[in-house]
Amino acid sequence: MKDVASAAGVALKTVSRVVNGEPGVHPETAERVRAAIDRLGYSRNESARVLRRGTTATIGLVIEDVADPFYAGLSRAVETVVIDHGCLLLSGSSGEQPGRERELVETFCARRVDGLIMVPAGDDHTYLRPELEAGTPVVFADRPPGAGIDVDTVLSDNVGGARQAVRHLLSHGHRRIAFLGDDPAIFTAAGRLQGYKEELGGLFDQRLVSMRTPAPEAVRAAVERMFGLDDPPTALFTGNGRCTVTTLRVLDGRRPALVGFDDFELADLLDPGVSVVAQDPSWMGRVAAELLFRRLRGDTGPSEHIELPVRLIPRGSGELTPEHL
Amino acid sequence: MKDVASAAGVALKTVSRVVNGEPGVHPETAERVRAAIDRLGYSRNESARVLRRGTTATIGLVIEDVADPFYAGLSRAVETVVIDHGCLLLSGSSGEQPGRERELVETFCARRVDGLIMVPAGDDHTYLRPELEAGTPVVFADRPPGAGIDVDTVLSDNVGGARQAVRHLLSHGHRRIAFLGDDPAIFTAAGRLQGYKEELGGLFDQRLVSMRTPAPEAVRAAVERMFGLDDPPTALFTGNGRCTVTTLRVLDGRRPALVGFDDFELADLLDPGVSVVAQDPSWMGRVAAELLFRRLRGDTGPSEHIELPVRLIPRGSGELTPEHL
Repeated sequence: MKDVASAAGVALKTVSRVVNGEPGVHPETAERVRAAIDRLGYSRNESARVLRRGTTATIGLVIEDVADPFYAGLSRAVETVVIDHGCLLLSGSSGEQPGRERELVETFCARRVDGLIMVPAGDDHTYLRPELEAGTPVVFADRPPGAGIDVDTVLSDNVGGARQAVRHLLSHGHRRIAFLGDDPAIFTAAGRLQGYKEELGGLFDQRLVSMRTPAPEAVRAAVERMFGLDDPPTALFTGNGRCTVTTLRVLDGRRPALVGFDDFELADLLDPGVSVVAQDPSWMGRVAAELLFRRLRGDTGPSEHIELPVRLIPRGSGELTPEHL
Repeated sequence: MKDVASAAGVALKTVSRVVNGEPGVHPETAERVRAAIDRLGYSRNESARVLRRGTTATIGLVIEDVADPFYAGLSRAVETVVIDHGCLLLSGSSGEQPGRERELVETFCARRVDGLIMVPAGDDHTYLRPELEAGTPVVFADRPPGAGIDVDTVLSDNVGGARQAVRHLLSHGHRRIAFLGDDPAIFTAAGRLQGYKEELGGLFDQRLVSMRTPAPEAVRAAVERMFGLDDPPTALFTGNGRCTVTTLRVLDGRRPALVGFDDFELADLLDPGVSVVAQDPSWMGRVAAELLFRRLRGDTGPSEHIELPVRLIPRGSGELTPEHL
C-alpha cells in the first residue's frame, strides 16, 4: 500500500479510501491510484487487513472426508496452527466431488475467509483465479492444483513411498506382489501405482493390480480373484489407510505379507503388527498452515512446492517371507 | 410475516421492506409494523429466508475434536444430511475449551450460518440467547446445554450404557471391576461414572476409579497403581474410545477382561476382540441434523430431548472370566 501511495504520489490514507470505496477522493486522483495498483499488482488483501485489525481472522479448510483418519489428523494439525495464531478454522468435506469442492470454496469466500487450505477433489481450479487475484492466499495439501494455477503446495512423496514399500517386500523374497489401490483418478493413488510399477519392473503383472474405491465388496472380489490365480500373490501392497483396513478385514485367515501406505491407529496392536509406509498427516497440516500464515503476513515470494518424505515402519506383516505362507 | 402484515394492516411487501430496512415506507407505517413484530414475537429468520430463496444455506457444526473418531463419525453424518438438503456445512473443534466453543459459535453467526449443531465444551450457553431469539435454530448433540437454555438435544444413554457394561462383567464372575474414565467435568464421563457406581452398588471401591483426560502417561500410572493393589481388578470398564485404546496400549501383556464405551475401528480384529458398549455417532449426527432441518422448515413445537440407546457388542475381551487371569 505504501508502494502504491508513493507510485501515485498520494497519501497512504488516499490509497486506503480508494481501495475501500470511501468518498472524498477526486476522480482523477482515484484513477491515478487505481493505475498504480494495476501497475504494482497490489490487490486489496482482506486477510492481511483482518490480521492487522486484530479481529479474529478465519481460515477455510476443504478436505476429502472428515471420517478418514488421515484427513482428521491433517485437520487437527491445521486447526492447532490456526488457533495458535489466534484465528479460527472453518472446514468442510468435498466427498471426492469436484462440484462440492467448488461450492465449499465459494461459500467460504462469500463468508470472507482470510485464507484457504484445500485438498482438491477436482482437477480444474481456474475458478480460484478471482480469489487469488483479490489476494486471498490458497495452499493445496495432499494433492496439487489443476493446470494453470500456481500456488503453494504440500504433497507426500507418493512415488518414492510406494517404491520403498515394494523394495521392502522384494527384499524379503517376494516376487508376486499385488497392489490394492484407490481410484487411479486420485492423484495420490496414481503416484503410488507409478512407484509400484517402477520398482517392480519386469515383475509387474496387471492381474495383480486392483485400483478402485475401497468398498468392502470390491476389495473382497479383488482379493478372491487374485488368490484364485495359478500364481497368486505372496505379498500385498495396499494403497492407503482405507484400502489397508478393508483388505485386513477380507483376508479371512490368509496371511500374505502386507505393507500399507498410511499408518493407522492400532496397526501395532494387531497380530502380526501391520508394516506401513507412514505419511505424517499432522506434519502436512502444520506445514500447509504455516505456509498460509506466511502469505497472510505478506510474503509474496514465488510459490513453494514441498514434498514431504514418508517413512517405512516394519511391524511384522511386511517382514513375512513367501515360505511363511 | 403474513401474521405481521395482517396484524399491522399492511401488505406483505411492506413488512418485508421494514424488516430488510428498504426505503419507501412511511415512518408511521414502519412503526406500526415494528410494533406488530414485537407483539407477535416475529423475528427476521434469515435461515428460513435463505431456504426459501433457494440459495445455499449453511449449517455450522461445533465439535470437540475432529481427530476423535466419534466426532469424525458424527461430523460425517451431519454433513451427509446437510448436503442431502442442498446445503453446506462449516465445522470447527472447540478442543474442550468453552472460550473456543463460544468464539466458533460467534464466528459462525457473524458469517450468517442458518443453523447450528453443537457439542458443547462449556456449561453456560446464555450467550446463545440473542441468536435463538433471532430465530437461528440450535441443536445440542452428545452433551446438553447449560441451565436456562431449552433447545433440541440428542444424547446417548450414558448411564444405562455404563450399567450394561458393568452388568456384563459381573455376569462373567468379576467383582473387582475398575473404571478408567475421562475428566468427570465432561457430561458423558460423569454419566458413565454414575452408571458404573449404580450397577456396582456395594462392590464399588474408589481405588478402582480413575477419571482424567486419557493421556498415555496418566492411564499408564492409573493401571500400574490398580494392578499394584493387594486385590487388583480382574476386569476394566473404559469410559470412551480414547480411554479404551490408550488402556489397551499400556496393558503390556496383562489380560484383564475389558469392556469399552464406544466402538472403534479394528476392535474386532484385535486378539481378543474388544467388547464394547457402542454408541452410534452416525445415528446421533443424523438425528441432530434432521431435527435442525425440521426447525429450519418452520417447526416451532416444544424442544425435543432425545436419548439414543446404546448396544453391547461382545467380541471376546468382555467375556473373559477371572479364572482366565
